[in-house]
Amino acid sequence: MTDRILEFLRNRREDGPCLVLDLDVVRENYMSFARALPDTRVFYAVKANPDPRVLELLANLGSCFDAASVAEIEQALASGATPDRISYGNTIKKERDIARAFELGVRLFAVDCEAEVEKIARVAPGSKVFCRLLCDGAGAEWPLSRKFGCDVELAPRVLEHAHRLGLQAYGLSFHVGSQQRNPGQWDGALKAASMIFRDLADRGVALQMVNLGGGFPTKYLKNVPAVNAYAQSIMQSLRTHFGNHIPETIIEPGRGMVGNAGVIEAEVVLISKKSDADTVKWVYLDIGKFNGLAETMDEMIRYPIRTPFDGDATEPCVLAGPSCDSVDVLYEKDPYDLPVSLEIGAKVLIEGTGAYTTTYSTVGFNGFPPLKSYVI
Amino acid sequence: MTDRILEFLRNRREDGPCLVLDLDVVRENYMSFARALPDTRVFYAVKANPDPRVLELLANLGSCFDAASVAEIEQALASGATPDRISYGNTIKKERDIARAFELGVRLFAVDCEAEVEKIARVAPGSKVFCRLLCDGAGAEWPLSRKFGCDVELAPRVLEHAHRLGLQAYGLSFHVGSQQRNPGQWDGALKAASMIFRDLADRGVALQMVNLGGGFPTKYLKNVPAVNAYAQSIMQSLRTHFGNHIPETIIEPGRGMVGNAGVIEAEVVLISKKSDADTVKWVYLDIGKFNGLAETMDEMIRYPIRTPFDGDATEPCVLAGPSCDSVDVLYEKDPYDLPVSLEIGAKVLIEGTGAYTTTYSTVGFNGFPPLKSYVI
Repeated sequence: MTDRILEFLRNRREDGPCLVLDLDVVRENYMSFARALPDTRVFYAVKANPDPRVLELLANLGSCFDAASVAEIEQALASGATPDRISYGNTIKKERDIARAFELGVRLFAVDCEAEVEKIARVAPGSKVFCRLLCDGAGAEWPLSRKFGCDVELAPRVLEHAHRLGLQAYGLSFHVGSQQRNPGQWDGALKAASMIFRDLADRGVALQMVNLGGGFPTKYLKNVPAVNAYAQSIMQSLRTHFGNHIPETIIEPGRGMVGNAGVIEAEVVLISKKSDADTVKWVYLDIGKFNGLAETMDEMIRYPIRTPFDGDATEPCVLAGPSCDSVDVLYEKDPYDLPVSLEIGAKVLIEGTGAYTTTYSTVGFNGFPPLKSYVI
Repeated sequence: MTDRILEFLRNRREDGPCLVLDLDVVRENYMSFARALPDTRVFYAVKANPDPRVLELLANLGSCFDAASVAEIEQALASGATPDRISYGNTIKKERDIARAFELGVRLFAVDCEAEVEKIARVAPGSKVFCRLLCDGAGAEWPLSRKFGCDVELAPRVLEHAHRLGLQAYGLSFHVGSQQRNPGQWDGALKAASMIFRDLADRGVALQMVNLGGGFPTKYLKNVPAVNAYAQSIMQSLRTHFGNHIPETIIEPGRGMVGNAGVIEAEVVLISKKSDADTVKWVYLDIGKFNGLAETMDEMIRYPIRTPFDGDATEPCVLAGPSCDSVDVLYEKDPYDLPVSLEIGAKVLIEGTGAYTTTYSTVGFNGFPPLKSYVI
């Protein structure tokens, strides 16, 4: 929460929930990453918030970009980034999308199986590929499935296949899980990566790069370690496992870059009880799972919420969205303490909402428009 | 799946996943409801699929509309429906949205607490209100939370409050849960409703209407009872509980009206294995949770999927979407049997996708555009 955001909201006259994102905070976050990991290139994960002004700021600061699709590559290019600063980091790509990315100048691609390597070899000859390793995601608040990556036995074969087909077997990537609160989680993956580096070197394939992924957290209700703690832990692991041959590294922060730069203003639409016996009130906002707060799915991300009545006595409330959909409930299993004095019509501020809100919005479920966004 | 849809897809030249919806099927569905429940007014739940051509067809057929927001009311009006055929069925409404609906001519509103009644009394004087009852949703495939409705002790007070404030205490509503496969589930709610009718009649408040809600299923993988089975069961319950004083009734089908009218065509982007030891393949489509298939959340809705290789031997596959989001997995806990011969680049048809697909699409998560829709 910054003074600039509060000032903007004081002067706002439009109706409906909105996100306000302060570019000064994004700039500070970028500088923190750059300072903490001076030898590591930063690839901003565009999907976290692809607002053109965020991308332009980061492009000007020297950031590179991790793109999930051709559309995101085009957004990064439009922001002023040159194609050598763009990684096509999705392991799931149509061959014609790879061809289009190659045409646009992109030469760095993620893979996690031989079939994907073959597509790239066909339509993006000579490009660099990095192979994603499966990672268990322990300690992360946003779950990791087995969707991305292959196991450590398979990865060397995938990279050898790339080498054989004329691609540059460039390195490895992994992701320790989004909103990862334990800086030590990078260690296991780096150990596995170092073994694959040695294994492939023995077979004549010289890997050069480790993509450390994202996972850097933003502060919600609980405190999180500072970027420096992650940097120190990662550097220690690199020294331990790679000795004097520390590879190039890149990171892909998304949430860690923009999460704390944004605040959503929402309105209390209704407060009610379901029965006389109920011990919790229901508080309904004009924002829910379908117009911005999708990450409350399974109550995973728990946002800090400020109200004009903070300081008054509180009581446990179920917090829900405005749509006619029964799954559009934000916090119910673990009710949210809100002031007893909270009133219908009050404005609340939902902090830490700069990442993964606007883009998760539906096109208009129940007739509610997508989340408005102001970048200041 | 209809011949018209297959013909359309044969001639389609654009890239990317799409929904094709056959209006002939919607017409048949409407007629089935109208025939099965001739004394019941049909309020189509706009949120299921608000495509203007769907709304126009239904308006022409004589349907009424259940709207979740002012935007949906405006869509229903634009389709040719008069305001007396529109119910503002969301129990969670801003006072200024109620005022706007009243200005547009709407006179029928849902409530589930006294605070909502007071808003309506202030800005929509003299309107009809119906009070929603909590219902447990047993037997439904899409879960019901306690989000909507109040308990049977509270409902009479809510309606008396409306009566006292000059509104017309018009009736009761309930919802037995979406994709409700048990026609007997209406009975308990109708029994409770009949008791409230008698209770309030004793106190001089004459309710007139029971809103039977939605819940009527569409066929996915399992067979579902025909509309007639629901109609018979409901009529039986009405006679049992209301005797010779059967109230006006309305229904709010959404999924049951448009679900089976639509088919999504998608493309296999990648097929891979995570390790040599894995017994399941991963099959990645160009559609997932964020561009149309949100109802696979928790693997709740299981769509029938046709491939060009049907009839060949099958094997269990994890099915996932194209985005760089680890939760974008459609079926994993209960893998989906697909042909061993399925190939990257193959087109698959996902049936029963006419409802709750286009509108659940995100605005562009990961740069993937919202689901395209063709209404034929």
